[in-house]
Amino acid sequence: MAKKKYSIKDIANELNISITTVSFILNGKAKENRISEKLTKKVLDYVKKVGYKPNQLAQSLRTGKSKIIVFMVEDISNPFFSNIARNIESKAHENDYKIIYCSTDNKKEKAQELIRLFKGRHVDGYIITPTEGMEEDINMLLSEKIPVVLFDRYFPEVETSYVGINNYQAAKDANNYLIGKGYKNIGLVTLKSAQTQMTDRMDGYLDALIESDLRPVVKEVDYDNFNSDGIIRDIEKFIVTNDQLDAIFFTTNYLTISGLKAIKRLKRSIPEDLAIVAFDDNVLFSLFDPPITALVQPIEDLSKNLMEIILPQLKGNMDIVKKELPATLLKRASTN
Amino acid sequence: MAKKKYSIKDIANELNISITTVSFILNGKAKENRISEKLTKKVLDYVKKVGYKPNQLAQSLRTGKSKIIVFMVEDISNPFFSNIARNIESKAHENDYKIIYCSTDNKKEKAQELIRLFKGRHVDGYIITPTEGMEEDINMLLSEKIPVVLFDRYFPEVETSYVGINNYQAAKDANNYLIGKGYKNIGLVTLKSAQTQMTDRMDGYLDALIESDLRPVVKEVDYDNFNSDGIIRDIEKFIVTNDQLDAIFFTTNYLTISGLKAIKRLKRSIPEDLAIVAFDDNVLFSLFDPPITALVQPIEDLSKNLMEIILPQLKGNMDIVKKELPATLLKRASTN
Repeated sequence: MAKKKYSIKDIANELNISITTVSFILNGKAKENRISEKLTKKVLDYVKKVGYKPNQLAQSLRTGKSKIIVFMVEDISNPFFSNIARNIESKAHENDYKIIYCSTDNKKEKAQELIRLFKGRHVDGYIITPTEGMEEDINMLLSEKIPVVLFDRYFPEVETSYVGINNYQAAKDANNYLIGKGYKNIGLVTLKSAQTQMTDRMDGYLDALIESDLRPVVKEVDYDNFNSDGIIRDIEKFIVTNDQLDAIFFTTNYLTISGLKAIKRLKRSIPEDLAIVAFDDNVLFSLFDPPITALVQPIEDLSKNLMEIILPQLKGNMDIVKKELPATLLKRASTN
Repeated sequence: MAKKKYSIKDIANELNISITTVSFILNGKAKENRISEKLTKKVLDYVKKVGYKPNQLAQSLRTGKSKIIVFMVEDISNPFFSNIARNIESKAHENDYKIIYCSTDNKKEKAQELIRLFKGRHVDGYIITPTEGMEEDINMLLSEKIPVVLFDRYFPEVETSYVGINNYQAAKDANNYLIGKGYKNIGLVTLKSAQTQMTDRMDGYLDALIESDLRPVVKEVDYDNFNSDGIIRDIEKFIVTNDQLDAIFFTTNYLTISGLKAIKRLKRSIPEDLAIVAFDDNVLFSLFDPPITALVQPIEDLSKNLMEIILPQLKGNMDIVKKELPATLLKRASTN
């Protein structure tokens, strides 16, 4: 059977004191309102005894604090984001915060709608993987002194806290590694995107090749094609029409998987016909035949930094902190 | 520059009418309060013109509706759950609902804390992958007429809406397929769990073997070991000490991946030394050498059914609906 549900009014009635007094005590404002310690203890003990639970929604209207952080990712079904989500969630838990996540699908309208939704519900802070064109929305949150940390990509013209990896250096290192291995015709398969994480990866590739006097060969794929077979056929065509290629650098996990499917269809051998480097590891890449060389993002460390940057902001210290972490190249047989 | 923020009071002042009238109109209660259509239109036009946005938190306190559905999964970094999340999210979006997700880590305390958190914030409904021991929490939601659909597993003694697959039949079919292929010593690697999805998978395996007069050989792994190397070593030991095994049925995706690592370490060949069937497909299983035979859960169809069952509940029709969908056995070379 359900317990009787106590309201502040019930408590005030039963203890024969005013509602205001009970409310002050429950909101930790007894002292500043000169309520005696004895009465405070009496009320708190009674509240505990009857199992009174304040209405959290009303409470967060009053205090403006919800202990909730929103984590907006591009796509929760991308293992990189879902692993970060899982990691942040356990770190938030340790700090008595809850994380709720949602996906933007990399669509500005959806992201804006979600921010509106959460703004109306008093969440305490945001970790956002922004879509293109969200500059104003981020600026709005910042101007209202709402804690925001951008993740994975940022806007050079918006001064915000940010955590991500050094995409330029990671891409450059991976391609220099291929060049050092003797590969001379290295293709790039990437997303058509103006976002920093993507342009940086492309720039790292381009600079590595140009500095070694090699000719870049670039295939940019539309994000919208994503779950379709079209992307696999696009990559097949790219490989067939660029028959000189001896290696391919894929800038995302999904592109790598589509690329592996394309290479399998074309019956090319890895690494004999084509060497492969993937951006982002996958739990199965090490088991592949041959195992796939991958740039590994430091998921644990990224999550740790995100929490370390947002926690002081949640306590009112709005310093802007930017962290760029290195990725690690896991050398496996796909680049032998 | 930010727009001036209008309150209901501002609107009432500028139109020279009462706050109550504005409030009735904005809450769709003009007619029942005998407010003229002309005045209603005037207020709505004005609200649109100045871009007034109601405080959604206050609004949901008033209306009790938030247009938010919570999806509690076991672990968002499990691709099965993150793919379902992604799918439900886009279906909810089409119906003007938002999904927020969170992970229980399969821990009862965390799940209960999350329910408390959301209950205080007026979410409209729940899709829950319950942990063990949550019967009372589910009953409490049901007794308060809050829409709840259980997913993936259920409590036989709690009468709730539910969507999942026919785990018993799927497991039985997969093992009968192995038996038909001539395998005679089929091992089971599963989680130590009393949850229905797990006990049903084990029962399907046991019945298939027993009906064919074969001897079951079962290894149960602790969920807590999950991310450690311990589980791989456990499976290695299981394989070595049961040298008669010619096939293994893994009841989850992660167990399969750990199993593949164990088999690789032991340098056994698939399927020559050991045939493999995985519960849940993985985007890379088809690219494996050899490709891995897997029971595929109908993600699209599961998501569709979850939404079709929860939507009428959100509109007040609390009929209990249960849906058990079939899984499909994708036969690949790991069971040749």
